[in-house]
Amino acid sequence: MSELKGYKGKIRDFLTQNQVKVGDLIKITSELTFSGILMPRYESGDESHIVLKLKSGYNIGIEFEKIEKIEKIGQVEIGIKNSQTIEKNEKLPKILLLSTGGTIASKVDYRTGAVTPALSASELYEAVPEIAKIANVDAEVLFSEYSENLQPDHWLEIAKKVDSVADSDYTGIIIAHGTDTMHYSSAFLSFALSGFKKPITLVGSQRSSDRPSSDAALNLIAATKFLVNTESTGIFVVMHQNESDDTIACHFGTRVRKNHTSKRSAFQTVGAEPAFVVYEDKILKNAQKEFFDGNEYNPKINLDTRVALVKYHPGFDSKIIESLIKLQYRAIIFEGTGLGHVGKTMYDSIKKAQENGIFLGMTSQCIDGRVSMTVYESGRDLLDMGIIPLENLIPEVALVKAMWVLGNSDSYDDIKNKMLENYSSEFS
Amino acid sequence: MSELKGYKGKIRDFLTQNQVKVGDLIKITSELTFSGILMPRYESGDESHIVLKLKSGYNIGIEFEKIEKIEKIGQVEIGIKNSQTIEKNEKLPKILLLSTGGTIASKVDYRTGAVTPALSASELYEAVPEIAKIANVDAEVLFSEYSENLQPDHWLEIAKKVDSVADSDYTGIIIAHGTDTMHYSSAFLSFALSGFKKPITLVGSQRSSDRPSSDAALNLIAATKFLVNTESTGIFVVMHQNESDDTIACHFGTRVRKNHTSKRSAFQTVGAEPAFVVYEDKILKNAQKEFFDGNEYNPKINLDTRVALVKYHPGFDSKIIESLIKLQYRAIIFEGTGLGHVGKTMYDSIKKAQENGIFLGMTSQCIDGRVSMTVYESGRDLLDMGIIPLENLIPEVALVKAMWVLGNSDSYDDIKNKMLENYSSEFS
Repeated sequence: MSELKGYKGKIRDFLTQNQVKVGDLIKITSELTFSGILMPRYESGDESHIVLKLKSGYNIGIEFEKIEKIEKIGQVEIGIKNSQTIEKNEKLPKILLLSTGGTIASKVDYRTGAVTPALSASELYEAVPEIAKIANVDAEVLFSEYSENLQPDHWLEIAKKVDSVADSDYTGIIIAHGTDTMHYSSAFLSFALSGFKKPITLVGSQRSSDRPSSDAALNLIAATKFLVNTESTGIFVVMHQNESDDTIACHFGTRVRKNHTSKRSAFQTVGAEPAFVVYEDKILKNAQKEFFDGNEYNPKINLDTRVALVKYHPGFDSKIIESLIKLQYRAIIFEGTGLGHVGKTMYDSIKKAQENGIFLGMTSQCIDGRVSMTVYESGRDLLDMGIIPLENLIPEVALVKAMWVLGNSDSYDDIKNKMLENYSSEFS
Repeated sequence: MSELKGYKGKIRDFLTQNQVKVGDLIKITSELTFSGILMPRYESGDESHIVLKLKSGYNIGIEFEKIEKIEKIGQVEIGIKNSQTIEKNEKLPKILLLSTGGTIASKVDYRTGAVTPALSASELYEAVPEIAKIANVDAEVLFSEYSENLQPDHWLEIAKKVDSVADSDYTGIIIAHGTDTMHYSSAFLSFALSGFKKPITLVGSQRSSDRPSSDAALNLIAATKFLVNTESTGIFVVMHQNESDDTIACHFGTRVRKNHTSKRSAFQTVGAEPAFVVYEDKILKNAQKEFFDGNEYNPKINLDTRVALVKYHPGFDSKIIESLIKLQYRAIIFEGTGLGHVGKTMYDSIKKAQENGIFLGMTSQCIDGRVSMTVYESGRDLLDMGIIPLENLIPEVALVKAMWVLGNSDSYDDIKNKMLENYSSEFS
């Protein structure tokens, strides 16, 4: 452990000179004056800023060159508190917080400066004490994985856990989740738990809590506010709406996509405004309809992963389709070009897949907009070969839906009908 | 042939009553008054509008219910003129217009109402007579294909044709192209013709000329204005910037993507403003740098299509990677999640691909933003396995670039170096 973990060169000298170390409560005079805890820095951090955790829980980076004065004003017990310290207020609504891992569940130990990938659900809750003023939270760790490592079996595990509290007195459920595949998980839960009677939010963060402008706390707080105030049910992804901290978006879990590798506002509702926006203590509604098409809670927690997502491009080798036939795939979701096309070089392999009883669905690699296969010759050819246009299903959602449908259907006609039925706002 | 092609029911009765037919010059009094040619309608058209081609070349749909009066005011020779009618002004700059097909090259015959998919390059030019006032155009048909049917061999054909006029007195080149894969073609030309000394524009249209608000004419006119006025060289995709007709965007051919199935503004520069915008007669510049990194024209018109684009998702079957190894692929471009990740379940097959000397490059399915593989454990694992992070290359561009690099390199190290070298603004 180093008392100045991650600080190098002249910044380190300056901090040593002024006798401050990581974990101290300090006051910095720069263009403005800031008070907060001195945070450690990591490999990937730049070398020209000092990072402070403000009282609000928000981390900021202060440019070293502009600092006029730094002074230690105390040493505080902050951050990860002991579970006993959060007093539960039995009058508040009850929320269940499930942790699955990801950046949001990465912990910085202020004393040692180490980043531990597994922050338990209860620590997560305690690291954001503001939540305790809004809701009474029970916390549980389901597993601790970065979401690039999540597989459909993890989706099943989450869905089963959520289903097990269907009749409980929880007002809503928060699922802390890595952002890489959060939209795949939200899509699966939307289908498997169709009609679930409590709102569910998946919450992630794009910047770990040791970095300036971490979004973890604000996203969690907004999700809690949304759950206790909304009348809606449904599965929502709750993340920053833009680069400011004023508004947090609640996206329909079947209409959302991660559209930027690093921005805090990486998640966007495709082709529309987010369903809800949390602004201060208000919940603003954009959604024109309810999330679930039916009213009945009818869980179907099954899937079959024999679905391929095939992005067509010039030069695409139709032998890949023949490999999928050999590997006994049951469905292929195409990401076609434009309105839902693939080149004529694909026709023979598509016919062969069709003859093998494989469900063939068409989405567009444009992502936004609707496929429309009657406009051009290519589209009409493909319709004749039995390809089913999937309206404006987002390709990733079409993939997850197909896995879910295959897990719950045996006949081609039933698969086709279910793929075209609207369950959870997947069509808009 | 029908004199009221496509018009049905009460609209048809109304037109018959008023003795107007397709091809007539008519005046319609509605909320405003419009004069223009009555256009035919087609299958996919809605049934509540009458479509008029205005003098400006712009098509509008007028809501039937709001029409107060319709009258025939003449019959005109318009649209497809005979080539002899366009007078060339030898003082204007010379432009070469190559037609490859697509919606932009779909022809409506005003007399018969039929839509013919092949509008020759010279007819295209003559259908937009405004161009003749800006430039002196030579027109040539290379082929007539909707762009979903274009293959890498077509890219080679276009590149060779363009290369053949490298030393001519043309000021610039317009390539009329279908929109489905226009961004793949623009990427290939950007690499194959690196350093080409004249500006090249690829121009498409999202709505064929028989539909209200066709964008064909405006995009062609803007491309011509751009070519004769710009000081820049480079490969540009020229399409509507937004849903108005005020501004047409010129996108760098390696930083553009079709992001909507049907909007006229479907093409967007990823993560930035378009390089140039044509607004009336002005060319506004956003680009901060020149398109080509080098100054020398050094054409390399070769490719090898043994490249797969693999979009990772939860449940992705690593057997697909093994199929690619068997099919003797030489490169795999991953569309990873988030900052450039794939799940641990892929590691064994990735190692095997690496052992087989396959080039493995990483992009992100987020599309916008940069891959960064040192931040998380998963990224570092993949780096250790020899996956090469491709910065912020757009996945489709990475695919095309890999085809081009493989066509011009034999050694792994040379492939890797070329993939990371910036040739034509593919990195930003």
